[in-house]
Amino acid sequence: MNMQPFPPVPHAGVLPSGPRSSIADVAGVTVGHCTLDEGPIQTGVTVLHPHPGDVYRRKVPAGATVINGFGKSVGLVQVNELGLLETPIALTNTFGVGAIAQAQIRSAIRANPQIGRDWPTVNPLVFECNDGYLNDIQALAVTAEHYEIACSNASVEVQRGAVGAGRGMSCFDLKGGIGTASRVIEIAGERYTTGALALTNFGRLPTLTLGGVAVGRVLAKRSASGDTHATKPEHGSIIMIIATDAPLDARQLKRLSMRAAAGLARTGSVYGHGSGDIALAFTTAWTVACDADLAIRPQILADARLDPLFEACADSVEQSIVDAMWHAVSVTGRTGHRRLSLHDAAPDIAQLIDGVRL
Amino acid sequence: MNMQPFPPVPHAGVLPSGPRSSIADVAGVTVGHCTLDEGPIQTGVTVLHPHPGDVYRRKVPAGATVINGFGKSVGLVQVNELGLLETPIALTNTFGVGAIAQAQIRSAIRANPQIGRDWPTVNPLVFECNDGYLNDIQALAVTAEHYEIACSNASVEVQRGAVGAGRGMSCFDLKGGIGTASRVIEIAGERYTTGALALTNFGRLPTLTLGGVAVGRVLAKRSASGDTHATKPEHGSIIMIIATDAPLDARQLKRLSMRAAAGLARTGSVYGHGSGDIALAFTTAWTVACDADLAIRPQILADARLDPLFEACADSVEQSIVDAMWHAVSVTGRTGHRRLSLHDAAPDIAQLIDGVRL
Amino acid sequence: MNMQPFPPVPHAGVLPSGPRSSIADVAGVTVGHCTLDEGPIQTGVTVLHPHPGDVYRRKVPAGATVINGFGKSVGLVQVNELGLLETPIALTNTFGVGAIAQAQIRSAIRANPQIGRDWPTVNPLVFECNDGYLNDIQALAVTAEHYEIACSNASVEVQRGAVGAGRGMSCFDLKGGIGTASRVIEIAGERYTTGALALTNFGRLPTLTLGGVAVGRVLAKRSASGDTHATKPEHGSIIMIIATDAPLDARQLKRLSMRAAAGLARTGSVYGHGSGDIALAFTTAWTVACDADLAIRPQILADARLDPLFEACADSVEQSIVDAMWHAVSVTGRTGHRRLSLHDAAPDIAQLIDGVRL
Amino acid sequence: MNMQPFPPVPHAGVLPSGPRSSIADVAGVTVGHCTLDEGPIQTGVTVLHPHPGDVYRRKVPAGATVINGFGKSVGLVQVNELGLLETPIALTNTFGVGAIAQAQIRSAIRANPQIGRDWPTVNPLVFECNDGYLNDIQALAVTAEHYEIACSNASVEVQRGAVGAGRGMSCFDLKGGIGTASRVIEIAGERYTTGALALTNFGRLPTLTLGGVAVGRVLAKRSASGDTHATKPEHGSIIMIIATDAPLDARQLKRLSMRAAAGLARTGSVYGHGSGDIALAFTTAWTVACDADLAIRPQILADARLDPLFEACADSVEQSIVDAMWHAVSVTGRTGHRRLSLHDAAPDIAQLIDGVRL
Repeated sequence: MNMQPFPPVPHAGVLPSGPRSSIADVAGVTVGHCTLDEGPIQTGVTVLHPHPGDVYRRKVPAGATVINGFGKSVGLVQVNELGLLETPIALTNTFGVGAIAQAQIRSAIRANPQIGRDWPTVNPLVFECNDGYLNDIQALAVTAEHYEIACSNASVEVQRGAVGAGRGMSCFDLKGGIGTASRVIEIAGERYTTGALALTNFGRLPTLTLGGVAVGRVLAKRSASGDTHATKPEHGSIIMIIATDAPLDARQLKRLSMRAAAGLARTGSVYGHGSGDIALAFTTAWTVACDADLAIRPQILADARLDPLFEACADSVEQSIVDAMWHAVSVTGRTGHRRLSLHDAAPDIAQLIDGVRL
Repeated sequence: MNMQPFPPVPHAGVLPSGPRSSIADVAGVTVGHCTLDEGPIQTGVTVLHPHPGDVYRRKVPAGATVINGFGKSVGLVQVNELGLLETPIALTNTFGVGAIAQAQIRSAIRANPQIGRDWPTVNPLVFECNDGYLNDIQALAVTAEHYEIACSNASVEVQRGAVGAGRGMSCFDLKGGIGTASRVIEIAGERYTTGALALTNFGRLPTLTLGGVAVGRVLAKRSASGDTHATKPEHGSIIMIIATDAPLDARQLKRLSMRAAAGLARTGSVYGHGSGDIALAFTTAWTVACDADLAIRPQILADARLDPLFEACADSVEQSIVDAMWHAVSVTGRTGHRRLSLHDAAPDIAQLIDGVRL
Repeated sequence: MNMQPFPPVPHAGVLPSGPRSSIADVAGVTVGHCTLDEGPIQTGVTVLHPHPGDVYRRKVPAGATVINGFGKSVGLVQVNELGLLETPIALTNTFGVGAIAQAQIRSAIRANPQIGRDWPTVNPLVFECNDGYLNDIQALAVTAEHYEIACSNASVEVQRGAVGAGRGMSCFDLKGGIGTASRVIEIAGERYTTGALALTNFGRLPTLTLGGVAVGRVLAKRSASGDTHATKPEHGSIIMIIATDAPLDARQLKRLSMRAAAGLARTGSVYGHGSGDIALAFTTAWTVACDADLAIRPQILADARLDPLFEACADSVEQSIVDAMWHAVSVTGRTGHRRLSLHDAAPDIAQLIDGVRL
Repeated sequence: MNMQPFPPVPHAGVLPSGPRSSIADVAGVTVGHCTLDEGPIQTGVTVLHPHPGDVYRRKVPAGATVINGFGKSVGLVQVNELGLLETPIALTNTFGVGAIAQAQIRSAIRANPQIGRDWPTVNPLVFECNDGYLNDIQALAVTAEHYEIACSNASVEVQRGAVGAGRGMSCFDLKGGIGTASRVIEIAGERYTTGALALTNFGRLPTLTLGGVAVGRVLAKRSASGDTHATKPEHGSIIMIIATDAPLDARQLKRLSMRAAAGLARTGSVYGHGSGDIALAFTTAWTVACDADLAIRPQILADARLDPLFEACADSVEQSIVDAMWHAVSVTGRTGHRRLSLHDAAPDIAQLIDGVRL
């Protein structure tokens, strides 16, 4: 990827970013991709590790919000009940979910042979978007091996754009993919970092809003001359993962995840019927041991202190979406389908935005 | 109110408005206010009638979304279970809910003396925001009589601004109140009207976004010189009522109500912890008779057709919020507390916005 | 009430009861009634205090389940969002909810004049059933004064049967009312007490099941000779309050409250369409101060330890329902409507049950 | 299986059964199994077809309730949002979910090659219980082929007991498996059939209740001499599928599915922490075409008419659970683990029950 020539991604909101401007600014979080780029196969797998340890053994408090449930993600039934993650978070295409869920099970059993014997089973957690415009999704090209590769690529340096699960995704009729961002806030003298990672595959060009500017209308007019990239995606979706090091419990993390809907709306989404819009938030502040402690005693922020985190979530999510488009390259996939990158479609995008911001 | 000198409220989105630019563009819907403006008592009641008939006898399909549940509205348990309204929709201040609920019960019994005897009881539906900055909310000034007055004022000409339940509300540290808007869309050759009515009482000035423009930062800088109106509201809230004449069922109306979260986010909200953010959508396309038909046979749009309605909901809600601020006059209430109107705080607001819109 | 001649209420399940066999076995919990017994006015108010202090200042962790939402209870929106009670729990008839909610507000303001001024407003929590068969519910006889009386009657000695909010209630075509029970369990060497209090107003006689025995069929056959008390209630409902001293958080308390559905089902309920079946569970193990601590650090049981509490909840709720019928006297109300007590309808009820239990 | 010597399964409730006493009494419903019985591999797949056609093309209205969400079933996010099934309903073991989901996708694509290209993707719907006590679940023995075999075995003659997905399941420390039952009710002169199919894998022996009789305590005492089959299952679960030909919409079907909790409770369950207790109800009365009609006009029963269906659901579910145990044979699986059948553990079970029923 030639990211050098691009100007920096527009900053959403007023809160400061973390040093990497990524979800890996939350200490312990790493992300790895496995990208499949072979003609009509334009897809992949992305795996986010909430901490460096074994997630089954040190379960991670989490909460989720289904903003629009036209989606096939798996694992949320148990997350809603118990408020815990017990695998890394995987993202892939819609038809790859089953293979990746099996891979998560095998990986967990390998690390903990008691699973399904002396210990409970494990809850796979796989999110998905439909990359069928660029990717030959019917080929079911994603396999367990790709999960392993993505895991082995885990890093605090998060690659963005048309990589991993984002390889074949479309966003606002342009190229979507993986984006990430972070914000640092302070609550009563303590600094907390909140980061987001988005898999973006939604929206129609005319509603695209970048940094508060409705650039989509301008771009749609330009492209009305007949560019084929304006084909309406039959089904979009967006997955938004939010990490924080602030000490929250599952109920509060569910509240936090709801604020992803605000960041998403700012980019021009109205949570379209066919878009599976799902947000999940987790904390790295504490974990729950799998071997049934009698009790736990986590420190939890008071709810009245959550507003800065809510703002950090919305801003991180908004910027993650923009970030995905900002870094994605143009991709040609099955049957010659092509999605132009934002920069290829609008080389003047930075000026367009700057010209109209207060 | 001297609304004449104001320029028209900025149009949200690209869909056309209905003729009245109000929720009353949905045929059959009327709204009436009772405004209490007596020194420290700055509050009131607003009643929305979903159709001209007896709502208990012709129940109205509806669905609701609690975006953030820091609120004291009543009636949603039954709406969620049965998907039906059976009273007009009332709005008032937080401590007026009980009195208005009793008024709804008395009104329903008057019209249908079988209620609570041969017929089931009636489910009051009262929404609220906390107007305690301007209004002496501890006085519990709202009584059943004010409900009756608001009902008798029902009209297709919806008054906006610091009226009815909106009298004492604050929004983005400025004067909030009642706002309304509508959009007309077409689905397969049929025209449908969707309208919104908002009771706005949320937000901090720096995040205010009007018509996509982050004017709040500019206004906050200006006011930093020490204006007392910048006091942070301890608790906000927003109620968003959406009406449509499109034929939907309760599940779909719940989906529609969720899109209010997108309109709300566009104005700068991240659904703050202390803000009770609740949306309810209803349809006028069909009703359910109270005397237990054996069965009903409503026509329902296919879900795949809902996107234009979702956009209409988000746009109507966004504009309703702006509309409330646009039309609200400055109000002085208890202990000299004062909220400046948007136009008093920023006489150049229209220019500010126009200057930066694409 | 002449409770002396009755044999003890059948014990549900195998867990031992607490010393009072009531929700007040959970230390700190008290209950008070105000009973209205004046001809056609057969109704009342019951107030449960989760701890002896000011509930607004020391908020109580809680979670609720709406098993069937044909009901008009108020306060659950905020309980679901924040997981906290901030008033005593009130029970009354359907049309008394508004008056009691206002009473809770006035009571909270009296104790804390900052409410609605410097502090947030207060969330009334009022549950209801429809006692319209015996009580002239249209008279709206319940007033704020009755709330105060019930509060002043708070005691660890919980009166049962046709008292307080239970005065006019019907259950399985017989007399319902207030019932309570408790269970003591042990988790890892620690003893925990769980208690339930039920306001019972649901069911049709033929499905009544007591202590696992389907006595309803027998009683229905006897009464088929034409007794008017068999009239089907148009609308029932049951409210189930569960208290525990086990340290749980709001998510876990919501899980606990769901188990009330098991206790309810054992008595013969299928959660009828017209029955508002609602359960709320709270813990006395910790509280949250209203003056916004930075953080809290509660001790919480591991979820894997909850099964004994789940069983205690189901057993307590089942026995509370039976307890209400066991202690309720026959009552004659409006227009000569009469509900026979279980013991008047079936003086041999204890033998009926004992004869068929294993 | 030698089912001949067994007396008929005890009838739950008073409603009459359909002719087959199975979910296939609902016209159009068929069920097929693929059973894996090879030493340590004791597992399988069960597939229920809601109608004889292509479920993707004629989608089926449905609603679900998660009674306790300690489970890994997939597909519920979309069912909750859209209220529709678009595949047959598959049941298998916890670690077979991924393979079966992939099989459902492949099957749907085979029938409709437009899926994931011109048409939306397809939502796999796979339910699971953990059969790890008898089955070597770590072997991941379930494959796509087993889904195809189960589909090809679809029949109105539903096999019960230790078959299909039920092969390795345990219930109340005895052998569980697949059970089914039905009830016929009348609403305003129309006859409707409701059936249930349960995959039973939950419970501890002492709480087992059959036909209202707490036989578990008796059996537990007998086995206390040290029978190894009393080992507590580490994780149970129960899946309850309810079919009806009554015309309901998704909201009503969700209400119906909740009544499975009543049937489940009657057998002695308190919805244990580690048990994934999930119910899904669908109707055969109408379907939704995949090629986006503009609108649909289904006939829907009034909610006030639903009580007989609620009773039919609870009774069918209760009897399905008993039916599974009644017909399951004893099974020996991995490492010599053995579950006795109910009849092997208690040859006098019918007499035990009859002796104490009213």
